[in-house]
Amino acid sequence: MKFSITRSVLLNVLNDVSHGLSSKTPMPVLTGIKIDAFLDSLTFTTSNREISVQVKLDKSSDFEIEEEGKCVVPGKYFIEIAKKIEEEKINFVLFEENTVKITTEKTDFTLVALDKDAFPVISFETIGDPIIVKSDMLKKTIKQTNFAAGVSEARVILTGVCFEINEDVLSVIATDSYRLAKKEIRLDKEYPHTKINVPNKALEELEKILSDKSEDVFIYLISNKALIIYKDIAFITRLIEGNYPDTSALFPRDQLTVLKLKKNDLVATVDRASLFTNMDSSNVIKVVIKSNKSVQIASNNNEIGKVVEEIIPLKEPEINNFQTAFSAKYFIEALKSFESSVVEIKFTGEIKPFVITGEDDESLIQLILPVRIF
Amino acid sequence: MKFSITRSVLLNVLNDVSHGLSSKTPMPVLTGIKIDAFLDSLTFTTSNREISVQVKLDKSSDFEIEEEGKCVVPGKYFIEIAKKIEEEKINFVLFEENTVKITTEKTDFTLVALDKDAFPVISFETIGDPIIVKSDMLKKTIKQTNFAAGVSEARVILTGVCFEINEDVLSVIATDSYRLAKKEIRLDKEYPHTKINVPNKALEELEKILSDKSEDVFIYLISNKALIIYKDIAFITRLIEGNYPDTSALFPRDQLTVLKLKKNDLVATVDRASLFTNMDSSNVIKVVIKSNKSVQIASNNNEIGKVVEEIIPLKEPEINNFQTAFSAKYFIEALKSFESSVVEIKFTGEIKPFVITGEDDESLIQLILPVRIF
Repeated sequence: MKFSITRSVLLNVLNDVSHGLSSKTPMPVLTGIKIDAFLDSLTFTTSNREISVQVKLDKSSDFEIEEEGKCVVPGKYFIEIAKKIEEEKINFVLFEENTVKITTEKTDFTLVALDKDAFPVISFETIGDPIIVKSDMLKKTIKQTNFAAGVSEARVILTGVCFEINEDVLSVIATDSYRLAKKEIRLDKEYPHTKINVPNKALEELEKILSDKSEDVFIYLISNKALIIYKDIAFITRLIEGNYPDTSALFPRDQLTVLKLKKNDLVATVDRASLFTNMDSSNVIKVVIKSNKSVQIASNNNEIGKVVEEIIPLKEPEINNFQTAFSAKYFIEALKSFESSVVEIKFTGEIKPFVITGEDDESLIQLILPVRIF
Repeated sequence: MKFSITRSVLLNVLNDVSHGLSSKTPMPVLTGIKIDAFLDSLTFTTSNREISVQVKLDKSSDFEIEEEGKCVVPGKYFIEIAKKIEEEKINFVLFEENTVKITTEKTDFTLVALDKDAFPVISFETIGDPIIVKSDMLKKTIKQTNFAAGVSEARVILTGVCFEINEDVLSVIATDSYRLAKKEIRLDKEYPHTKINVPNKALEELEKILSDKSEDVFIYLISNKALIIYKDIAFITRLIEGNYPDTSALFPRDQLTVLKLKKNDLVATVDRASLFTNMDSSNVIKVVIKSNKSVQIASNNNEIGKVVEEIIPLKEPEINNFQTAFSAKYFIEALKSFESSVVEIKFTGEIKPFVITGEDDESLIQLILPVRIF
């Protein structure tokens, strides 16, 4: 096995496949990057069992194969080498079974390779018709929803993000049962009804691979896996089995009052108001509509102190003598997901879930469940 | 106690006194900032027993005292409040014994104060004649030497940095016994012979307080302490007692060969060459002058692999068939302390200490002890 490759091309490839690398694993070979050199293409593959990533290069200007072959190189060190090299041309040779030589004009690196036969066999072949989404839309949708997914392994089903297609609408929902994020995007055409639950850990990695450009992402559902093809990258994640809960009943139909506010001012106020509570796990702030309809955001920590700040909504609230309490962290994360500069908070009751919407983000809804503190 | 203060002034003060705050301490009051309001001045004091810092404001344009008094506020929270406030005017009132109200136009913060009577009494009064050093020179000197100080409590004396004055020359020396940094600066006038050992932890904080400007720093030595006056800041550190070792015999008098190299190229080479060894604690690289007088930097880790890189000195070495091995970390730290773009490495033997000097930094010498690996 012998090839040469342009450093900038290799760096991009390694950046993409690094998202599938294992750091801690009982299978040492999964800390490696598998390289397959064919006469006309070069593939790089990583897998951590949950996610597998493969990049296939077939533009011959970026590399030159002198001899076919395959090997698995230690991922962390190979990436460090590529980063620290200054020259544009990198030569790669496999000596005997387990010694890799990476050389440039100035430097000779010798690396002990991992056992290539221990690397799992992973098929990246597409089957059936793909769902097509734009890269920028998918990236934004993941960021606007996936922070609300659960982290507790006690309810594995909520550690995923639910993608459901009805006709030409894709709904994406994440919830940890205390808050919920929902986003709808319109697809290029109608698709058969589909509902899958994608592990959030896989989405966190996929989001980093996707660009902000409007490029096609092809999603193939193959038994209990999703295979995502994006440019020269193939990304596989397992799907979470079981019924994702129906959350439609959570959204309140009526409302008591709406607070319309400038988003950035509100985030700064909540940030100040939660100063003394973000150390304890509850991190609870109160929103109070006083008898004179002025609105306060406040918090209290017996040992440290308390904070009270008045906020001026863009229009006067419809009700007075109302108060509700909830997690400042959840509230700030929900607020930051909106692109709008103005948000609306719709309260339906002191201990009923409330929703946040953005003036210019009609397709995004954030829902938070209050906590009982009085 | 009641005063108002300009936010930007308060932020600067808090930034300076924060260097004396305790984070973990058996004396909770030391996590606080003591504030003393007099009719014409306002002082802020912190102490962690090793270091004490006081800032005294007496320009009345920056603050307005309505009522004298004193209190100790929780440092971390007071600093967070000052950072998160947006308005320029901050009002500060002490209610009863232990409740502080910090208010702005929009926000009311209530803080539980700490017990002011538990705060240690610290004198910041100057006694005797000071040594005068320029702020920028002192800051640079600390950064060029203090990384070489020891960290092991087994040899407490080496955890300090030695400042010695002979006539009008200040020599600053730090060593952990495996490497040594020495810098000399010329003072404004002659002083009596002085030799003190300043805890490196104190210097790390002092360095952050000093600016890059050429402003006077006044150093008073009072029994076993140093009191440093710089602008409106008074900084006290205890000194380490005992005889700092005489290191003059360590510097080699003869030399076998000199390697003259471009500093940045050398740092990049060592960074690459040490790629596989910076995981193990030894972090050893080899410098080899081959029989043909070419120079290689190399390292080796049996489990991961090895790296060999040739470097081209600015002039040919005087000897051949030479090799020495030493810590890549120590070497890079020493190299980075130089402002020169060209450095000279003077070897005197394969296991004898070697020195590094910079073409434009005559007053700075770095010394490193090789390790025996063959």
